[in-house]
Amino acid sequence: MAPATLTSTSLTGIKACVFDAYGTLFDVGSAAARCADALGERTAPLAALWRDKQLQYTWLRGLQGRHANFWTVTGDALDYALAAMGIDDADLRDRLMGLYRTLDAFPEVPALLRRLKAAGLRTAILSNGSPAMLEAAVTHAGIADLLDAVLSVEDVGVFKPHPAVYQLALDRLGLPADSISFQSSNGWDAFAASAFGMRVVWCNRYGQQRERLPGAPDVEVRDLSELPALLGLRG
Amino acid sequence: MAPATLTSTSLTGIKACVFDAYGTLFDVGSAAARCADALGERTAPLAALWRDKQLQYTWLRGLQGRHANFWTVTGDALDYALAAMGIDDADLRDRLMGLYRTLDAFPEVPALLRRLKAAGLRTAILSNGSPAMLEAAVTHAGIADLLDAVLSVEDVGVFKPHPAVYQLALDRLGLPADSISFQSSNGWDAFAASAFGMRVVWCNRYGQQRERLPGAPDVEVRDLSELPALLGLRG
Repeated sequence: MAPATLTSTSLTGIKACVFDAYGTLFDVGSAAARCADALGERTAPLAALWRDKQLQYTWLRGLQGRHANFWTVTGDALDYALAAMGIDDADLRDRLMGLYRTLDAFPEVPALLRRLKAAGLRTAILSNGSPAMLEAAVTHAGIADLLDAVLSVEDVGVFKPHPAVYQLALDRLGLPADSISFQSSNGWDAFAASAFGMRVVWCNRYGQQRERLPGAPDVEVRDLSELPALLGLRG
Repeated sequence: MAPATLTSTSLTGIKACVFDAYGTLFDVGSAAARCADALGERTAPLAALWRDKQLQYTWLRGLQGRHANFWTVTGDALDYALAAMGIDDADLRDRLMGLYRTLDAFPEVPALLRRLKAAGLRTAILSNGSPAMLEAAVTHAGIADLLDAVLSVEDVGVFKPHPAVYQLALDRLGLPADSISFQSSNGWDAFAASAFGMRVVWCNRYGQQRERLPGAPDVEVRDLSELPALLGLRG
């Protein structure tokens, strides 16, 4: 099959596709789901509270200027969530954290990345995750060879949505903001990248409401399989 | 009755008591509660989602460096919450926003402030609220004469927990951090003020779990009526 080519469509002039990792390429609910044997009906509430606190802690630490890496914050958030749900089980805590290093990729991800690469587009991750977490996740998903760059906020020492994070992608890829298509399932991340100046595809997997924040994603989709068509990739 | 005097206790050397406003002095749930006729079973979920998004938006805007005043953010959060719950009612929206300007004070607040003033302590509010919102709330609660200062983040142009906000209290009161007792019902605010160096009373009205964030409140109480005893005020 010949490489797909770019044609005129809603996203034009794109040179690189940059992806958020957690929630966008990797299913953050899959760690708790794999412990459903121990968690039972508490699986979904624990996964939701863990994620909510994890994000809260990134925002609060960022605004305070008290950065800690994402592994620490993820553990802190899990400790809060387990305590809030009355779960005191060190083995389960260790199991959940271990699983967070090898989250499931969403099913469309490997084929999508192959298609983008075949079309000559550059691909990258831009994530809150620490380099070690991202390496483990990418390796587990078998997508390491399909990514030109795996960028961690650790290189700027502050979490999303600080503008320094989005600037990191521009600096490392050597591209202006408007030639980058940024994909995120997290509305706040999608809006912030748009306000920063990137072209944005909001992969609204969870049917969230539009945020009332600066910025406006260019396109809203339900999963990433729609991305090639948005970029005008044929066939 | 003679003025109470300070004695040695868990909080010593305190010259001023600084209070968070929303959730601490004023009941943020009271706006939705007064619309229970229209909201029915949706009253508590709407109040919770409105508050969650309001805080999220302050943190996200702060970290992005895209400040807007708290009235705007409060309206944005309400719009999100109403949309998420499928409520499309402009009159109800206006009614809720109007009520947010005249939230109920918690019952112990007026007597507490009178007691602190009688003991010669200085009293202040340090809040995300805009000056107009705070003036309306303080006037409605009848506590304007019991406060030496009403400090708004608008004077520094960024929301809590940015350190510039806590510094504002020090600058305006002319006091070092460790001679200020800061009271907040919001765990993240209490932890941040502690990390900044203030003495902190976490008024944990809602039975929240301890946050896993920098800092450690000096004391945890269930409502503010316990504060005079913590400060060693007699009788």
